[in-house]
Amino acid sequence: VIKDLFAPAYANPAGSPIRELFPYLSRPGMISFAGGYPSPALFDAEGLRQAAERVFAQPAQALQYGPTEGSAPLRQELLRLSSGRGLRCLPEELLVTTGSQQAFDLLVRVLVQPDDVVLLETPAYPAAIQALRLAGAVIHELPMDADGLQTASISDRLKQMPAGAKPKLLYTVPTFSNPRGTLLPHSRRVELIQLARRHGFLIIEDDPYGELTFTGDTPQPLYALAQDEGGPENPVVYLSSPSKTVAPALRVGWMVASSDLVRRCVVAKQTVDLCTSPLAQLIAAGYLQSGRYPGTVSKARDEYRSRALAMADGLAATLGAQVRFERAQGGMFLWVECTSTVDPRRLFEAAVQQGVLFVPGAAFYPGMPEGTAMRLSFAAPNVSEIREGVARLARAFASSTSNIPVTS
Amino acid sequence: VIKDLFAPAYANPAGSPIRELFPYLSRPGMISFAGGYPSPALFDAEGLRQAAERVFAQPAQALQYGPTEGSAPLRQELLRLSSGRGLRCLPEELLVTTGSQQAFDLLVRVLVQPDDVVLLETPAYPAAIQALRLAGAVIHELPMDADGLQTASISDRLKQMPAGAKPKLLYTVPTFSNPRGTLLPHSRRVELIQLARRHGFLIIEDDPYGELTFTGDTPQPLYALAQDEGGPENPVVYLSSPSKTVAPALRVGWMVASSDLVRRCVVAKQTVDLCTSPLAQLIAAGYLQSGRYPGTVSKARDEYRSRALAMADGLAATLGAQVRFERAQGGMFLWVECTSTVDPRRLFEAAVQQGVLFVPGAAFYPGMPEGTAMRLSFAAPNVSEIREGVARLARAFASSTSNIPVTS
Repeated sequence: VIKDLFAPAYANPAGSPIRELFPYLSRPGMISFAGGYPSPALFDAEGLRQAAERVFAQPAQALQYGPTEGSAPLRQELLRLSSGRGLRCLPEELLVTTGSQQAFDLLVRVLVQPDDVVLLETPAYPAAIQALRLAGAVIHELPMDADGLQTASISDRLKQMPAGAKPKLLYTVPTFSNPRGTLLPHSRRVELIQLARRHGFLIIEDDPYGELTFTGDTPQPLYALAQDEGGPENPVVYLSSPSKTVAPALRVGWMVASSDLVRRCVVAKQTVDLCTSPLAQLIAAGYLQSGRYPGTVSKARDEYRSRALAMADGLAATLGAQVRFERAQGGMFLWVECTSTVDPRRLFEAAVQQGVLFVPGAAFYPGMPEGTAMRLSFAAPNVSEIREGVARLARAFASSTSNIPVTS
Repeated sequence: VIKDLFAPAYANPAGSPIRELFPYLSRPGMISFAGGYPSPALFDAEGLRQAAERVFAQPAQALQYGPTEGSAPLRQELLRLSSGRGLRCLPEELLVTTGSQQAFDLLVRVLVQPDDVVLLETPAYPAAIQALRLAGAVIHELPMDADGLQTASISDRLKQMPAGAKPKLLYTVPTFSNPRGTLLPHSRRVELIQLARRHGFLIIEDDPYGELTFTGDTPQPLYALAQDEGGPENPVVYLSSPSKTVAPALRVGWMVASSDLVRRCVVAKQTVDLCTSPLAQLIAAGYLQSGRYPGTVSKARDEYRSRALAMADGLAATLGAQVRFERAQGGMFLWVECTSTVDPRRLFEAAVQQGVLFVPGAAFYPGMPEGTAMRLSFAAPNVSEIREGVARLARAFASSTSNIPVTS
């Protein structure tokens, strides 16, 4: 089982590397930095219960099939949310999806043929890698640094490509990326849009974490920026979801794109699941209408900020120069690179033995990465669990970088 | 818009032909025999409300991501339902899907490569045609008669195929098919399984309507029959859903297949939607646990039996020898063929003018069908609406088979 965890995601027959970790998660006392799960302590269960109660008071629409485009009340709320983020969006430019995961999958279905070239910032979300792989895409990795996608290197990458290998799309999480946690600065956003316009590729801007800012200071989404700059067509498709802020279990996400692309995704969605659960959609709509959403997001920001701080302080104090990472400005993840040669398998096994779990860095690359890295999520464990988990991680480092067995 | 309705489904760029009918559905006073929607009057909203209330009393699991295979309580209920239908099924042979629509789509993704040969009983469910088309499959149509798929003709069809064109799978709705409403007899079921074993193709048995029997006398599902007959591997994959009996809006379905095939579909599902809404799953599980399900199904059977009878009696009384159809033994549909030459477009337009809607037969064929047929659903309108709708249909027939305009 552990073997697949260290294979590149591109070659992983078991799909998501996170699944490989399930057996470890259930071990008693295990502290997990592995999952990309939001903290259940932050779910506004009472608000959602009330929204469900209102839906069941008028159940006719909530129980029948709904339009493939999404149920009207939720579409209205998502237009409002999008507009609050600076996107100008017509109703026919918005599609409700079964999580934003489905939005990406629909786009890949509609846009990508086998052997098509796609650009992917790496390290990247494994399910995105997997969807592109299953579609037969030729994936070109684009490097990232502490500020996210290195836009300056893209032109050179494009020049190195064989003639005729014109990329169809570029996938990026510009705001608090997964797994790197980076925030793409405004200047790089401008540059990226210019590149997309010049080279005719579509940018898929995945934004599940954008609301989870710790500073309140995030640049405009790429979609909104491209609109403000004007130009013929918007080269950006915007994806988001309330999964990380309200509840993943609603499985509700949305896409903002040209009406033509939305129409093509609607046709694909008919064969995929006909429509996203109208019951879940109306509960989500009711929740967004209730006015509780801003408070819920604000509470999540505060809590995740404290957790991120505890994790970064702990790592700095216990591991010091053995690791390299950037302090998170938002989102759910820290990307931690080992500064010396560490065998990733040995490190992972030592961590499991110490009772702490992370996702090995290799899982986030379509090919074989250099060096040893790990993704640590600070979202699910609380501050005291984070402190203890970091202490365990430090012991795992000690035992895997020396030959002396460490007892806990 | 009407144009696409009469194009073969295989060539329909707009996807589902049903969607083309949406603008007509909203006309005041329109009676619709078009949709495949269950009657909202039969939804047990109170039972579902209570199930939701219980879920929100313990919300932790209901709001978080869940396993891709499905939430444990629902899996248990679906194993129980499957077992009640005669299927012996291990937990690793069952996958919860986002409607049974998704189950078919996952199977197509996992099994069908472009140019693969697939067998399809026709007329067939348009979304199944569309999913196969999008996968690039070469569709071979298999004819049906009043007893469903003509199994005796399959051997000949296979012999006519070019060498090397070995079919991968056969899609069928053996129990109350859509759109024909047919019930495949036991003897043909036995024959079909033998053919699949001999020629090495997989049967996808789609069973959304099986519980809606009007006689209580339905043959075993193909999956169960193949198990009882023994043999090395079961050549059948079984799909079902509570969408037609409980509520479509849950978007919950399931697949029973070999553990190997389930595992491959799980990997595909990770990139498609990660998991079916755990909230919807737990509400469905709670409803099935509550013991209200058998009563709900029984009520639906009684009501649909009366509606089917009213429709068949009405058609016989008003259209007589102008149409040919079989009385439904279950399900939601009557398939009505015109015995004389009728222009399908003229008939449809006349029906719209009279205030009644149906789906033209061409929508259910990947290629161009012979003759004029229509699918009438008796599930959504009540008995008096059915009587009035049939009278309108008779007037539409009169006006489209003569040149004398008919006033309503």
